[in-house]
Amino acid sequence: MTEIPLASAERILRNAGKCRVSADAADQLCHHMQDYGHELARKALVLAHHANRKTITAPDVVLAAKDH
Amino acid sequence: MTEIPLASAERILRNAGKCRVSADAADQLCHHMQDYGHELARKALVLAHHANRKTITAPDVVLAAKDH
Repeated sequence: MTEIPLASAERILRNAGKCRVSADAADQLCHHMQDYGHELARKALVLAHHANRKTITAPDVVLAAKDH
Repeated sequence: MTEIPLASAERILRNAGKCRVSADAADQLCHHMQDYGHELARKALVLAHHANRKTITAPDVVLAAKDH
């Protein structure tokens, strides 16, 4: 079970070019995108706390992605 | 407009810890996850073609993520 819908991953793979996509490929991409998201979220939370906030804001995510 | 639902990104951010999440933070995370997904999909397609296939399979995505 992933947070990101399988259909989203399938669309992203299909848009890569003229190709077919196996179901397990879409599932794998889902997991990778989600792991990346969790990693960014964890970093963004640290950055929000660092700025004495309890709310994660867009600049926290932007900076987290730069660190990554 | 992103391929990944805003609600998915919001859940991922909320799961990072006890915090609130601004709407623009979720939007930002969506974009980053999607960009990452597009990058992996592009690499996976190259790897599938390299293996003389027209179908992207899970091992293509796994190897693309290792390269990344």
